[in-house]
Amino acid sequence: MKILLVFAHPEPQSLNAALRDVAVQELEAQGHEVRISDLYAMNWKASVDRDDFAQLAPDARLKVPKASHGAFDADALTDDVKAEIEKLLWADLLILQFPLWWFTMPAILKGWVDRVFAYGLAYGVGEHNDKHYGDRYGEGTFAGKRAMVITTAGGWAEHYSPRGINGPIDDLLFPIHHGILYYPGYDVLPPFVAYKTDSLDEAGFATLAEQLRARMRTLATTAPIPYRRQNFGDYLIPSTQLRPGLGDPHATGFALHVEEDAQPYAIKRAIP
Amino acid sequence: MKILLVFAHPEPQSLNAALRDVAVQELEAQGHEVRISDLYAMNWKASVDRDDFAQLAPDARLKVPKASHGAFDADALTDDVKAEIEKLLWADLLILQFPLWWFTMPAILKGWVDRVFAYGLAYGVGEHNDKHYGDRYGEGTFAGKRAMVITTAGGWAEHYSPRGINGPIDDLLFPIHHGILYYPGYDVLPPFVAYKTDSLDEAGFATLAEQLRARMRTLATTAPIPYRRQNFGDYLIPSTQLRPGLGDPHATGFALHVEEDAQPYAIKRAIP
Repeated sequence: MKILLVFAHPEPQSLNAALRDVAVQELEAQGHEVRISDLYAMNWKASVDRDDFAQLAPDARLKVPKASHGAFDADALTDDVKAEIEKLLWADLLILQFPLWWFTMPAILKGWVDRVFAYGLAYGVGEHNDKHYGDRYGEGTFAGKRAMVITTAGGWAEHYSPRGINGPIDDLLFPIHHGILYYPGYDVLPPFVAYKTDSLDEAGFATLAEQLRARMRTLATTAPIPYRRQNFGDYLIPSTQLRPGLGDPHATGFALHVEEDAQPYAIKRAIP
Repeated sequence: MKILLVFAHPEPQSLNAALRDVAVQELEAQGHEVRISDLYAMNWKASVDRDDFAQLAPDARLKVPKASHGAFDADALTDDVKAEIEKLLWADLLILQFPLWWFTMPAILKGWVDRVFAYGLAYGVGEHNDKHYGDRYGEGTFAGKRAMVITTAGGWAEHYSPRGINGPIDDLLFPIHHGILYYPGYDVLPPFVAYKTDSLDEAGFATLAEQLRARMRTLATTAPIPYRRQNFGDYLIPSTQLRPGLGDPHATGFALHVEEDAQPYAIKRAIP
């Protein structure tokens, strides 16, 4: 496979960098081709602003979706964004790797999403009518490709468990998994999450590295999280509400958007 | 009250800017003192990196929590961050206003959180022992203060409803409400969310502005979201898991962390 790893940690000596190197070595040993976008090393511009849209007249109002659409269609996005889009189209699998800061990705990686996931590429794709509300959630530009998160947390696994105070890790990552990756078509693999990373010793690192290698060996065969597809009957269109009768009656919130049958992923978290 | 509004939209002619002006006018008419951090106008630096920690030796490994802790204790954070902390300590109420981009805040605002919410100020506060796992989730530096999100979404309210495909808005905002605002002690008010903003006409704006004014008139009396406090019996310490028997048996995910009694907020979303 062709794999793009987008990396968002400022420190080359960090645990994240060490885990990245473990992952890349294993992937290359398996014969995969790997490219890395090291956002800090690239001095990635994080904030969307008018500099992203050279076509926009100086006195014109910046509407981001409209400007993004125009620039994408005219091949007028900035060179840094175009280079990332080229890598996304090249890759069969996308890995986002980052430390969990305030329960989500660091700003620099959010800024990569905000700038690279252009209108016409990652959203605003496909027809919107009474039977089909855009090519999204199971369709879209990246359909047929896979994606996965690798992240590290200072807190304990218990704090992120189904009844842990931080909220379940599956739910904390849902806006990324479902809202950023599944939305434009990726099949999303279960994440690799390292906990209690502030107190990790050498033996702990060795165990973690071996677990990560194992995941890197099974990227092609691991079952993705079975999110429901939007335009294939589970949702009313165009309200995009889950059809009455569907969904585990003992689930609320994000869990409803995972198919309740045929897989262990939803079942393990359905009932507290 | 003293109110800090942190604003994150790149366009002065935007709907967000218009709503901000409506809010500020109403707040000042009510006699409140308002300060604004307009992150784009301030050219806010979004990415945490070693430039944030001048004390760090050039060859030292950057561990962000440790560097943040040291710089906060030594009053050695950068001037832009110190100015924001001064405003946070001054304000009785914090408003975060932003367009919902990819189901969360824009990178520039995430970078405000990543850089301003220092170790010793917003996390790493209080003792960690077998009965008390830090001053967080109901305690902390900002205890006694209030906070609120104002946000705009292009999608429809139905898409963000309890069974809508995007996920319920309360759950999408949970990592911000609970993880960023409640964590360091804020009481979090229900958010003000504007939907379908891409097709808003003048009459729609007038209605929205009136709804926003009404919310701005009741900031002192609106009941906060009744998240459970960490160190007062609802959670096992130090695992911070919700005590067996607590929590709506028909709820999963984030909803468990809202008290099930005594308020309408949890009830309206408990059962699909």
